[in-house]
Order: sequence, then structure tokens, then C-alpha cells
Amino acid sequence: MTERPPAIETMPDGTTLRHPVPSDHPRLQLALADWWGGQGGAVGAAQRRLLVPRLFLQHFADTSYVVERADRTLQAFLIGFLSQTDPDTAYIHFVGVCPEGQRNGLGSALYRRFFNAVGTLGRTRIRCITSPGNLDSIAYHTRMGFRMEPGDRLDQGVPVHLDYDGPGLDRVSFIREL
Amino acid sequence: MTERPPAIETMPDGTTLRHPVPSDHPRLQLALADWWGGQGGAVGAAQRRLLVPRLFLQHFADTSYVVERADRTLQAFLIGFLSQTDPDTAYIHFVGVCPEGQRNGLGSALYRRFFNAVGTLGRTRIRCITSPGNLDSIAYHTRMGFRMEPGDRLDQGVPVHLDYDGPGLDRVSFIREL
Repeated sequence: MTERPPAIETMPDGTTLRHPVPSDHPRLQLALADWWGGQGGAVGAAQRRLLVPRLFLQHFADTSYVVERADRTLQAFLIGFLSQTDPDTAYIHFVGVCPEGQRNGLGSALYRRFFNAVGTLGRTRIRCITSPGNLDSIAYHTRMGFRMEPGDRLDQGVPVHLDYDGPGLDRVSFIREL
Repeated sequence: MTERPPAIETMPDGTTLRHPVPSDHPRLQLALADWWGGQGGAVGAAQRRLLVPRLFLQHFADTSYVVERADRTLQAFLIGFLSQTDPDTAYIHFVGVCPEGQRNGLGSALYRRFFNAVGTLGRTRIRCITSPGNLDSIAYHTRMGFRMEPGDRLDQGVPVHLDYDGPGLDRVSFIREL
């Protein structure tokens, strides 16, 4: 059995919150392919997978979290880090909640835990990005207190940064003060 | 004109070494597509591009470097960071040298600069990975003092970690003590 770090918290429903370890990577890769409702098709799944290489579980585990069920299947995760260049900023790179776990506050609980953890470490600002077409994500971040940074173009009220992460990879940029 | 950080060093041939800024990202994306001799075709180029999202230039600039010519075209880059989870380790994520700049010591100079920078910050170990098929990269890292970590399988003497970064994304893992 692979060694795992101790649980940070065990919930009444038997789910456990802990920091990730590198051996969580295959399960995370499956989640990245499966949990987004097929958004972007096979290309979208491959892009999400490439955005979470193993290095995040190796080197940014202490500000990242996984939630797993009693049977050790994955229910949710948050990958975040402290900006090395900007000592005020922490960054949320990727958050996923399994389809049957959505709309029950699990994602928000992970965000709040990250806010608390990085706030304790002196960070005062959180940044993250999403795709302009992911309207659920945009609405969600707005509810969570993020504001959208001005972009290159307004698209139905959404400020879009064109080619932000490469050719064709437009993004919406969020910021939230703690 | 986009603001750039001051040069760390200006070489006799007019090239300049400095830390990257987010506005370097489009040039880096072009380099990732063009500098690898077409390795992996269009899929390989897309994979390399997705592995260097803008966040590395925003949040890990202080342990990353670009070399540009007097006409401001890009000649080489190194993207690296300090492990947040392991206080002894620094990680080199991606290094590129333009084809006409290879075999003149530019890559090695960037590696040595990174070793010095992170050594000064107390790091004693450097990690990085490469693809098993990239024999030039494997030979290069061996010459630079890296050793290969044991993998899941030996492939013509090369220890391969299967599906290291996701399905089909095998990797060779390097480590070097400072």
C-alpha cells in the first residue's frame, strides 16, 4: 500500500482531506479527463492533463489538497502554490470536484481552506484563471469573491485575455484580496 | 515598449541575460514550437507549449532566465523554481536554446547560473525530467553531473518511469547534488 500523509480532517460522511502525494497523480489524471463533462472533447481532456504534471504534487503539496472517500476514490482536489516572485500572492492552479460531489459546498470548502492556509503564511492576494467559455467557473469565482481583471476585449461582459497561455488559449484572470 | 527587468549580465556578443516577465510568454511559446527540431510533430509542439503556461513567468521569474540578442530576439531560456514542499530541492522545469545557439555552452551557462542562484538560497539538490526518447537531453544531463533515478523499467540502459506525467507520458528523472 502506498504511503499517504495523515488526514488533516475526516468528515462525518467518511471523506478525508489531506495533502496530495506524487502517487495520487494517476487518479488526478483520470479526474482531469472525466470530471469536466467532456468539455473540449479529447483535446480539452488532454490539455487539462498536461496542465497538471506530477511536479505540482511533488513540489507544491503543502498548499494543495485532495478529498477522498472511505474507499479511497477521489472526490475533489485543489492544486495551489505560493508565488515565489510576488510575496503577497498565492495562486490556485486547478480545482476539481467529481460530478456527483458538485453543488454541495465541497469546492468552496477547499477554496476557503486554501485562503486560510496562505493567509496564515502572510499572503494577501489570490490569483487564478479560467477559460472564457467556462461560464459556470466564471460565475463560481465571482460568488467566491474574485473579481475579473481587465482584458484585451469584452466578450458578453467577460474581460478576455487573448492568447494568454499560448496561441488560441484565451483566459479570464481573477484576483481576490484576502 | 514593454517594460523589462534590468539585465543581469551583458555578454561581449551583445546578448543579454535577465529574468523573464509575463510579456515574454508569446516569444517563449514560439520557441517551444520551433526549437526542438520538430520532435513529436504538432502534438509534441502542443505538449511543450502547454507545459509552460504563463504562470511560470509570473510566479517563478526570480529563478528563471532568458537570453536575448541585441535585436531582442530570444536565444535561450531556463524556467526553474524552488520546491515549496522540499526545502532542500530546486527544480528545472524547461530549458531551451535556439538551434543556432546550441553547442556553444549557452545551455550549460544557464544551468550553472541556476545552480549558483539556488545554492545561494540554501538548496542542495536539483531535480529535472526529460523524455526517454530524447537521447541528446539524457547525454547532456549526464555530462552536467545529473544521475538518473531508478525507474519502472530499463530501456537500453535508460531507467524509464512509465506514465510519469500521465498516460503515455513516460519520463526519465534526474537528480544532482550541489
